[in-house]
Formats: sequence, structure tokens, C-alpha cells
Amino acid sequence: MHAKEKKNRSNDAMFRMVEDIIGCKWSLSVLNLIKNGINRPGQMEQSVDGLSKKVLNERLRKLVRYRIVEKTVFPESPPRVEYDLTPFGLRFVDILEAIESLDREFSENNS
Amino acid sequence: MHAKEKKNRSNDAMFRMVEDIIGCKWSLSVLNLIKNGINRPGQMEQSVDGLSKKVLNERLRKLVRYRIVEKTVFPESPPRVEYDLTPFGLRFVDILEAIESLDREFSENNS
Repeated sequence: MHAKEKKNRSNDAMFRMVEDIIGCKWSLSVLNLIKNGINRPGQMEQSVDGLSKKVLNERLRKLVRYRIVEKTVFPESPPRVEYDLTPFGLRFVDILEAIESLDREFSENNS
Repeated sequence: MHAKEKKNRSNDAMFRMVEDIIGCKWSLSVLNLIKNGINRPGQMEQSVDGLSKKVLNERLRKLVRYRIVEKTVFPESPPRVEYDLTPFGLRFVDILEAIESLDREFSENNS
């Protein structure tokens, strides 16, 4: 495979990922919670109206698969589970925030 | 309308816009051309394999509607038409590039 082809394919995957996260309000909500220190699934479920355990778990699995967040299980009794942003996820959230910031400026200029 | 509601609605519109552009390879191609100084529709059509005049014009109209690019008609004979990034569009393209840059780093770390 040519280097250019490989780069393009990789870009495609990244764009699809951004598209997937940006298009999903639950993923955005969950990322926002984790960024604000709400790291345990139980807390998350209680923090967002309408967020069911099933949907939460699906979104967390997706975010882990994308390596945006990582899951840690603490060997306590009962075991404690926490989700945190990875270094990649921190950068990814920065981009989401750049989009929101551009939106704020743009809205101000047009109001 | 509450300020928060208004903000959320506006965010939604921005995310949908990003999603729409990122999900469309022709829009990305056209933006890339304009950024690289290929500003006239005729040049654009010749620069991208498989890009038809119809699709090009649809994408240009969309980018103008989103205020990412602006159209200028120069009163020459025949009239010359050029498309340029707006100040908002420049910032928007920065975000697309931040996504590509994150992708490059991420791919390097996983290769």
C-alpha cells in the first residue's frame, strides 16, 4: 500500500469517528461528565436525565473502543469502576471544545 | 427562550454542520482546493478526479450557505467567479486540520 493511500484511509477512520461522536448527544454528554470528574457509571446515570444504563454502557464501550476513554477496575469490595480520558481523548475533547468555541463566536457575530 | 436553551440549540446546529462537512469527501476536497489557492470552479473541476460540475456546484452552494466560503463575481468579460474562505471558514478549516493532526499522531503511536 502506498503511504498516501494509507494516510487517506486512516483519515477516513478518524473523520468517521468524529462524525460518530459529534452526531451522538449521549456520547457528548458522557464525555462532558468524565471531563468534569464524574467518572463512575452510577454517578453518570444519575447526572443525565433520560440516560438509561443500557445506553450509557453502549456509549462507554464505544468510547473505550475508540480509545477516547479508558476503564479502570479498582479491586475493592464491591469493585469500583472508573472511566477516564486517555491522552488521545484529552486532545479529542479539545477539538470538540474548539468547535463549541467557534460556535460561540459565530453566534455572537450573528446575533 | 433561556440563554442555556439558545446555546444548546446553536451548538446542535454547529455540530450538525461539522458532521455534514466531515461526512462528505467532496466538501473536504473542495475546501482543500480553496485553501490551496484553487478558487475558480473550472480549476476545481479539473483538479479532482470524479468531481462533476453538478456535485461541485452543490457543495459550493452548501459551503456558502454555511458561511464557510464566500463567492465573489468579478465584473469582467466573461465574468470571473472565485470562492474564498471567510474568517469563520479559516477557523473551521483549522479545526479540520486539528483533527487530521491528531489522526497523524494517533496513527504513529499505533503503527
